Amino acid sequence: MERKEISKSVLKRLPIYLSYLKSLPQGSAEHISATTLANALGMGEVQVRKDLAMVSDGGRPKIGYHRESLMDDISQFLGYDNTTDAILVGAGKLGQALLGYGGFEEYGLNIVAGFDLDPKTDETEEGKPILPMDQLESFCYANKILMGIITVPADQAQQVCDKLIACGIKAVWTFAPVHLDVPEHILVQNENMATSLALLSMHLQAQIKEKK
Amino acid sequence: MERKEISKSVLKRLPIYLSYLKSLPQGSAEHISATTLANALGMGEVQVRKDLAMVSDGGRPKIGYHRESLMDDISQFLGYDNTTDAILVGAGKLGQALLGYGGFEEYGLNIVAGFDLDPKTDETEEGKPILPMDQLESFCYANKILMGIITVPADQAQQVCDKLIACGIKAVWTFAPVHLDVPEHILVQNENMATSLALLSMHLQAQIKEKK
Repeated sequence: MERKEISKSVLKRLPIYLSYLKSLPQGSAEHISATTLANALGMGEVQVRKDLAMVSDGGRPKIGYHRESLMDDISQFLGYDNTTDAILVGAGKLGQALLGYGGFEEYGLNIVAGFDLDPKTDETEEGKPILPMDQLESFCYANKILMGIITVPADQAQQVCDKLIACGIKAVWTFAPVHLDVPEHILVQNENMATSLALLSMHLQAQIKEKK
Repeated sequence: MERKEISKSVLKRLPIYLSYLKSLPQGSAEHISATTLANALGMGEVQVRKDLAMVSDGGRPKIGYHRESLMDDISQFLGYDNTTDAILVGAGKLGQALLGYGGFEEYGLNIVAGFDLDPKTDETEEGKPILPMDQLESFCYANKILMGIITVPADQAQQVCDKLIACGIKAVWTFAPVHLDVPEHILVQNENMATSLALLSMHLQAQIKEKK
């Protein structure tokens, strides 16, 4: 179907729908309505209906969506069926964990190699190569890599980001809690773990105060 | 200072200011103004000024903030100086990585143990214990644990979340890409890696199309 402009909040909800649909047991009803989905997830019916209409043509009055087709439509919309090869810079604990984590393939992400200024090992337990930084550029160009993941400490992140862009990277996923300056055509997605932790910590402090 | 209500977007920016302030070399000026900070981070001056005023009383006209005190104020505001003990459920790759990651301590998070239905080992390389699920409840109560981290697959996340709440957990940090139903007094913070990946993938698809 034709691709419409889509808001970030819709993009946040789509993976939730998909994950719920996937979680339904084998042998569940072949069709599912926006209403059923909304009720199961405790979300607004109108919102769910609008979201689904945005990614799939398959909704039919009184019947709903064919479940398998809807999962395909959402996956396709989210780009999960196009596998993207990415490299990662910073093969410390977090970096190695992401390199070794199998779960990203489900979302179309394949991290093909890690890079480090001072590699402690030449591959992860899972056999993903960890290469020295001076091979970054040739690797990226040879393998047409467009996505880079940054797992270096905050004070090195900008420098690594600049280097990635010089190597042809167009999309940056960063775990460093720091603002990165990039040209307009580059997308930076910051995994704000620090923000999450701050929110959780504030909630706990409020709870503890209430108790007193 | 008195605590005001604070928006999520402010909470997202505060860790960025803190990280920048920390990244300044030893021997940098003792004071820093909102303007300098705004320029360095490419952010709006008015916004930075308002954000800082919300967390610190220390700003003085023409001089700005005492750098060290400002860092303390932000850290304290974000709860980074109160260490929170947390447990984690799901000691697979991602779980073990989070257990072993030292970087969270900087944000006041100490993951004291991991739990798993079927632990493959009884501790991580770093010596953090990995315990069977049937010890979860006694461990949480004995150690007054209020925060739980969920790193199980999506289809097990709700069940684990319910169990955590039954064990006295008040704040849940989840890496499972699924909506979790919780009572009102429980905070769930979802680390939306799936959303990040969808945004990045969409950006790359658009870039590739443009090239064609």
